[in-house]
Amino acid sequence: MEQANRNVFIGATDDYEAAKVVLFGAGADATTSYRPGTRFGPAAVRAESYGIETYSPYQDRDLEDFPFYDSGDLEFPFGSPVRQLEAIEARAGEILDDGKIPFMLGGEHLVTLGAVRAAFKRFPDLRIIHFDAHADLREEYLGETLSHATVMRRCYDLLGDGRIFQFGIRSGTRDEFAFMKAGHVITEPFTCRNVEKLNCCGVGKEAELLGGCDVESQPLNSLTPIYLTIDLDVLDPADFPGTGTQEAGGLHYDELRCAVTDIITRFHVVALDNVELNPSLDLSGRSTALACKFLRECLLAMSGS
Amino acid sequence: MEQANRNVFIGATDDYEAAKVVLFGAGADATTSYRPGTRFGPAAVRAESYGIETYSPYQDRDLEDFPFYDSGDLEFPFGSPVRQLEAIEARAGEILDDGKIPFMLGGEHLVTLGAVRAAFKRFPDLRIIHFDAHADLREEYLGETLSHATVMRRCYDLLGDGRIFQFGIRSGTRDEFAFMKAGHVITEPFTCRNVEKLNCCGVGKEAELLGGCDVESQPLNSLTPIYLTIDLDVLDPADFPGTGTQEAGGLHYDELRCAVTDIITRFHVVALDNVELNPSLDLSGRSTALACKFLRECLLAMSGS
Amino acid sequence: MEQANRNVFIGATDDYEAAKVVLFGAGADATTSYRPGTRFGPAAVRAESYGIETYSPYQDRDLEDFPFYDSGDLEFPFGSPVRQLEAIEARAGEILDDGKIPFMLGGEHLVTLGAVRAAFKRFPDLRIIHFDAHADLREEYLGETLSHATVMRRCYDLLGDGRIFQFGIRSGTRDEFAFMKAGHVITEPFTCRNVEKLNCCGVGKEAELLGGCDVESQPLNSLTPIYLTIDLDVLDPADFPGTGTQEAGGLHYDELRCAVTDIITRFHVVALDNVELNPSLDLSGRSTALACKFLRECLLAMSGS
Amino acid sequence: MEQANRNVFIGATDDYEAAKVVLFGAGADATTSYRPGTRFGPAAVRAESYGIETYSPYQDRDLEDFPFYDSGDLEFPFGSPVRQLEAIEARAGEILDDGKIPFMLGGEHLVTLGAVRAAFKRFPDLRIIHFDAHADLREEYLGETLSHATVMRRCYDLLGDGRIFQFGIRSGTRDEFAFMKAGHVITEPFTCRNVEKLNCCGVGKEAELLGGCDVESQPLNSLTPIYLTIDLDVLDPADFPGTGTQEAGGLHYDELRCAVTDIITRFHVVALDNVELNPSLDLSGRSTALACKFLRECLLAMSGS
Amino acid sequence: MEQANRNVFIGATDDYEAAKVVLFGAGADATTSYRPGTRFGPAAVRAESYGIETYSPYQDRDLEDFPFYDSGDLEFPFGSPVRQLEAIEARAGEILDDGKIPFMLGGEHLVTLGAVRAAFKRFPDLRIIHFDAHADLREEYLGETLSHATVMRRCYDLLGDGRIFQFGIRSGTRDEFAFMKAGHVITEPFTCRNVEKLNCCGVGKEAELLGGCDVESQPLNSLTPIYLTIDLDVLDPADFPGTGTQEAGGLHYDELRCAVTDIITRFHVVALDNVELNPSLDLSGRSTALACKFLRECLLAMSGS
Amino acid sequence: MEQANRNVFIGATDDYEAAKVVLFGAGADATTSYRPGTRFGPAAVRAESYGIETYSPYQDRDLEDFPFYDSGDLEFPFGSPVRQLEAIEARAGEILDDGKIPFMLGGEHLVTLGAVRAAFKRFPDLRIIHFDAHADLREEYLGETLSHATVMRRCYDLLGDGRIFQFGIRSGTRDEFAFMKAGHVITEPFTCRNVEKLNCCGVGKEAELLGGCDVESQPLNSLTPIYLTIDLDVLDPADFPGTGTQEAGGLHYDELRCAVTDIITRFHVVALDNVELNPSLDLSGRSTALACKFLRECLLAMSGS
Repeated sequence: MEQANRNVFIGATDDYEAAKVVLFGAGADATTSYRPGTRFGPAAVRAESYGIETYSPYQDRDLEDFPFYDSGDLEFPFGSPVRQLEAIEARAGEILDDGKIPFMLGGEHLVTLGAVRAAFKRFPDLRIIHFDAHADLREEYLGETLSHATVMRRCYDLLGDGRIFQFGIRSGTRDEFAFMKAGHVITEPFTCRNVEKLNCCGVGKEAELLGGCDVESQPLNSLTPIYLTIDLDVLDPADFPGTGTQEAGGLHYDELRCAVTDIITRFHVVALDNVELNPSLDLSGRSTALACKFLRECLLAMSGS
Repeated sequence: MEQANRNVFIGATDDYEAAKVVLFGAGADATTSYRPGTRFGPAAVRAESYGIETYSPYQDRDLEDFPFYDSGDLEFPFGSPVRQLEAIEARAGEILDDGKIPFMLGGEHLVTLGAVRAAFKRFPDLRIIHFDAHADLREEYLGETLSHATVMRRCYDLLGDGRIFQFGIRSGTRDEFAFMKAGHVITEPFTCRNVEKLNCCGVGKEAELLGGCDVESQPLNSLTPIYLTIDLDVLDPADFPGTGTQEAGGLHYDELRCAVTDIITRFHVVALDNVELNPSLDLSGRSTALACKFLRECLLAMSGS
Repeated sequence: MEQANRNVFIGATDDYEAAKVVLFGAGADATTSYRPGTRFGPAAVRAESYGIETYSPYQDRDLEDFPFYDSGDLEFPFGSPVRQLEAIEARAGEILDDGKIPFMLGGEHLVTLGAVRAAFKRFPDLRIIHFDAHADLREEYLGETLSHATVMRRCYDLLGDGRIFQFGIRSGTRDEFAFMKAGHVITEPFTCRNVEKLNCCGVGKEAELLGGCDVESQPLNSLTPIYLTIDLDVLDPADFPGTGTQEAGGLHYDELRCAVTDIITRFHVVALDNVELNPSLDLSGRSTALACKFLRECLLAMSGS
Repeated sequence: MEQANRNVFIGATDDYEAAKVVLFGAGADATTSYRPGTRFGPAAVRAESYGIETYSPYQDRDLEDFPFYDSGDLEFPFGSPVRQLEAIEARAGEILDDGKIPFMLGGEHLVTLGAVRAAFKRFPDLRIIHFDAHADLREEYLGETLSHATVMRRCYDLLGDGRIFQFGIRSGTRDEFAFMKAGHVITEPFTCRNVEKLNCCGVGKEAELLGGCDVESQPLNSLTPIYLTIDLDVLDPADFPGTGTQEAGGLHYDELRCAVTDIITRFHVVALDNVELNPSLDLSGRSTALACKFLRECLLAMSGS
Repeated sequence: MEQANRNVFIGATDDYEAAKVVLFGAGADATTSYRPGTRFGPAAVRAESYGIETYSPYQDRDLEDFPFYDSGDLEFPFGSPVRQLEAIEARAGEILDDGKIPFMLGGEHLVTLGAVRAAFKRFPDLRIIHFDAHADLREEYLGETLSHATVMRRCYDLLGDGRIFQFGIRSGTRDEFAFMKAGHVITEPFTCRNVEKLNCCGVGKEAELLGGCDVESQPLNSLTPIYLTIDLDVLDPADFPGTGTQEAGGLHYDELRCAVTDIITRFHVVALDNVELNPSLDLSGRSTALACKFLRECLLAMSGS
Repeated sequence: MEQANRNVFIGATDDYEAAKVVLFGAGADATTSYRPGTRFGPAAVRAESYGIETYSPYQDRDLEDFPFYDSGDLEFPFGSPVRQLEAIEARAGEILDDGKIPFMLGGEHLVTLGAVRAAFKRFPDLRIIHFDAHADLREEYLGETLSHATVMRRCYDLLGDGRIFQFGIRSGTRDEFAFMKAGHVITEPFTCRNVEKLNCCGVGKEAELLGGCDVESQPLNSLTPIYLTIDLDVLDPADFPGTGTQEAGGLHYDELRCAVTDIITRFHVVALDNVELNPSLDLSGRSTALACKFLRECLLAMSGS
């Protein structure tokens, strides 16, 4: 008799030991202030994955050659962000302690805090590269300090000045932009003045701060661990309508794909996430399809890093 | 120059003092385990109300003759049920202390606990009449004691045995049904055996327990205060698809309307709510339309009680 | 080379002369006060018709045995109700003058006035049988006398007291219900008190007024011409969500089908319409499917009348 | 490290040997003539199942006490009905040969033919009980003999006169109804004349033909093997809009649930199916929710048969 | 007791006197020939506004520093364009007479004619800058002279040759393009030949005609009053699907935002509008979100002009 | 009495003899592996066409000046690809034998094989220009050799090496890309390395292979017959969500329109198609609108070729 259907991302191995990267889902959205539903993101991406190829023509690589493990979704109560973050920190920490790279699928952006805590505990020199439409730098939001709108500020509380690099930001309060301009996080010159779009060469200035690697031939500084967090609403809503707080004027898919695979290839990413897919907001299904292919590209880029 | 648009339920008075009933919205849905979005319920009902008549041919009454006040929505952080319940209890308590009847619009069913606390503090002899597809009697749910799936159990913790009367229940765990059958709450004989549908005469047995009033001529026992909570998913999903956890085989609109207006007319309802409308799940809009007309019927029935 | 696709209702003849009934579309919705789109009704019904059988097991008749003609849709400017009504009156009049029965597909309910004018001019003794959720008896609506909400009042202005028979009404202003209760139109006892649902036997009282025919064997009074107008929102929104102003608690399909085929069979219907399908409000498509099959049943009933 | 997510119907056992019933999905829809998409039915039902309780208050039974196995979905090429039917026959045959009951989830109705072939080969005395809105008795459809519209005719070719019992039929061609009336299949008196709705007592006449068991105390005739096929479009579209060819005037959920659990309890069902859920046609999700709970009820009824 | 919810655009002042700009809604769509629903535009934008920040990082300005007033929506009968235009002209005129700038939210594009009449009566030297996918220059449409498809021709009748400047036009009849090419309105060279996209520098030629201001340092010619009308379907449907007549190949959000804020800053805009948002056509909600943020940018640009 | 509605593409002539191009629909989708529904494409495009102008400002041409014929849709059984391809080959062959150009509207991409067979039989020197997101070069798919995923491989089997020119490909298996790189089809350098977007000048290299025409002044080589097949999923899903297998990072409308009208103008296109519109996947309707306008542009370009 045949086995029942498997429910992991396409191409995942059954051999945990062999895997370099370990996926897990963290479908929490308790603090979402507008149109919740990102909790369905990880399941939607897994289901969709059976409709895509394991091969990427962009990178000329195939998931079948790259062992990664899919450890399934965390189960936790809705309505309890503190306990959700504890569960996330525990799972990410376990993966890190096994010498592997945790790759978390959100859920709302707050989940990043749990994984960042795990990574920071093990890599005190951690930097964060952050793609997002929103600054997420509020001190508090509606009286709460733990929220999708405060998550990068909480990360800042851990890491300190000059260690968070933001791309694609085009929405925030006056206070958040003042905080950026004061240099606590590095967003200049991407958004404050020109709100220019990112391109593949755009990571140059950050690269300098990280130890320099904007010259193609320069070796990656392996002493600088990176947490890479990608809020998919950094994309233009035309490309990615399936997210709760859409901001017109975002990156296009090729821009994001190119920038992120470039960053993964050059830098020492020790943990990463993709968050804020809300499949129910896009009846055409293209947001889930995009998230699925983007995840494949991230996994394949990790295989060569 | 004209005033800006008003945003209250149709027919609401500007004179708080004159009002017998006070509406307020509590659009919380942090613990919703499946398809959140009831937070948009109160706003949807208010917006829809401008498309309906203030007159009910069923009751031959008009909202224009009945002063009620709409005090707007509570604002509270998402992701913090404890604080949400505190805010609800405060608002409902304030209305009760002013000698008025609080009428809360959810939001998920957990919000009922806040209003029940306020009512119970002022009416220690409180009973609850509960319309719902789900028993909501779990001791805990996914490790949490505060949840839409535990709300009636928490109410039971306050009120004790034999004070909660449930109608329309057709879903629950084995443990929840065992709890009912043990007599802690009164659901027999509506669901445990026959899952018979409610009809207008169906409140007879409960009426006896409440002091007896199934004979038309018998005066309402004014010493028995009632909290009336209506989870709109008690309705059949054909009539009301706009709710997160749809259970086939429910009541039809006329059954619910008739039963509820009958209960309001006969009993001493001191506080009430309508919860679990999730407008985004019904693109046809008929769930919001129904909720809006049902609210009108409840308000008009209160005017004669 | 094959012909291009035809675009008429399934089973329509090409022989105008042979037809007893002539369909035409009047997709006007200029005065719709909430969620317009009935203009797409006729096209949706025609397209859908190719997915249904021409045979009705309810009546054991087949459209292939009954010659009717589909004369296509009227084209008229949006935003000009006066000219739309003129075009409708002209088309309906032309069909009547050819000794045939006009069967109009709306469009909003206001279109009925045009066809009633044409019929009244030729049958001064005309009565109207009216199925609807709404009384449509306002003297004016938002300052306009021509509106979907006033259409039956305008018909009343033509026909006078006691000639309009309403079924299924469950929404209106206090003034409209007062107008009914004063006996200007015949709605008692269907809605004013009990809002009872119609059943097949329910036309008895009206039948008496029309000359009596509630006894099965009694011949149809051929001297009493009837205009039969069916606003499909008389149906329950669970059965028929595809309409702009949904009223919970309506008729079910079998009730309406049975009542209408019974009326057509017994009485002398000289013109009729089906109005207020708005296909875009029902993404499941079942409203259009129902409207399509209901139209088939009406056509087949006409064949035996 | 935790296991990856499982993807079977809730409550399924891992122990194939212990199982009495074996679920499998056959998501084929190649011959669907209008709005395909039933191929997504099995996956949707499995995913939804994690939102329901394993306990049924209707039957007071729990899936946790009843070992069934979920063997996953068949994979086959789209566009090749012949090969799809071969794959289905093979899977169903294998399950039957293991002494278990195959329970197939469609897919379009044509899949039933594969499973009926497997059952008929092993039970030459097989009868079929068939719930459907459509007769499915065409000799051919658009030139093809294998189609969702011909499936019961192909089953008739195998079984012969008087062995197929149809319930709920309300749509078909004149020829199909003539075929019924000629007695080749047993639909009288359910549809041909009155199109009456089925009720729990309605299986009496069929029961007689099957050996008699309409008296409660009479033992089930264990010599008469039954294939039970349920096209979910037998339900009213108000209850179940998520199907490709909706027919107004159908059964309500409680009617179907009651009739089917009654049949399963009384008769010797050797194989069964639930077909024609198309989740994409019901954005509210209630059709999938209903199909999921109906499947639970069928499984629980099997446990006691 | 708290106040009921307010229903104005976020950041609006309560002090009419202090306001420089006055918003009002004109949700008319009676002449819409295809997919009406823009009547819901103003309400959707107001509701959405509570989810955005009052601060714009593009302009580094905050609505809290800029007093504008929201005077609510006009109420008028549907189906009567003449009276709708009178009501619009009256409201816009009243605002102009108070020395303020009327900012109208449509509604279909025909509403622009009412506001242009008011502005032209007070500024006989008026020019119109017009962003749109469609020329809207028909002499009549389906026999009507007042229509969304004729609105700019009616404006031309008032203003005369060479006073209307069109951007983004990519759809029209041969006659409309001939009218442009004859120089009655100024669209050359943007659309007639190359259908090139607009960029921020693109207003140069128009600037010359208006008195010259394509040199950054040149002061705005304050003697040339401008009516600025923006049909949001000038945007690409990928960015803005929520409009009734979508034309592929349009402007992207950043292009429009940049061009319009540039125009507002340089020229003497005396009245303006944003029209043709139809929220029901975009279930993802991003069109309403975009319209809301674009309105914020327009308001903030007015504050500095 | 007026004629019934016509149902052909806007501007089509009634005079078959006069037509240079003959449209026909082939709404087959039996082998679609994910989200079928392209069968509704041709009907949706025809219905939509009545909302667009016959004039193109891009080409300054009008369909009214160019006689083309619309011969309607093929009717064939679903679930039988072999017979569908036979019907398509017959229709396309008949049109070619009449000295006209067949223009097929899909349907899934497999339909192209039928028309290519007809063209190849009459033009043995045939080349194919192929726009698509997917290579469609699999040897087999799920065990079937006839499938939307194998269609270009089957065309290759007919035509042989170096005769298929692919644009826009960004998805496929490792084997398919190896097949391209081996030179069997010409996709270098568009996708294999850089996945660069196509621009109007991009056909240069192919032009050389076809006989050279990348220099503007060089006359078209009339000896090289071209079959032009355009899978609309070559477009970016932001522009065209209405297709079953969306691939982010595609062409924008203006890029495709420009490239295709350029190719038609320069080369000797003897047959062509537009395939893979699935209208039900795009509730905003913009995909159908785009497909409709793109078809107009193709027809107008043919008029000048």
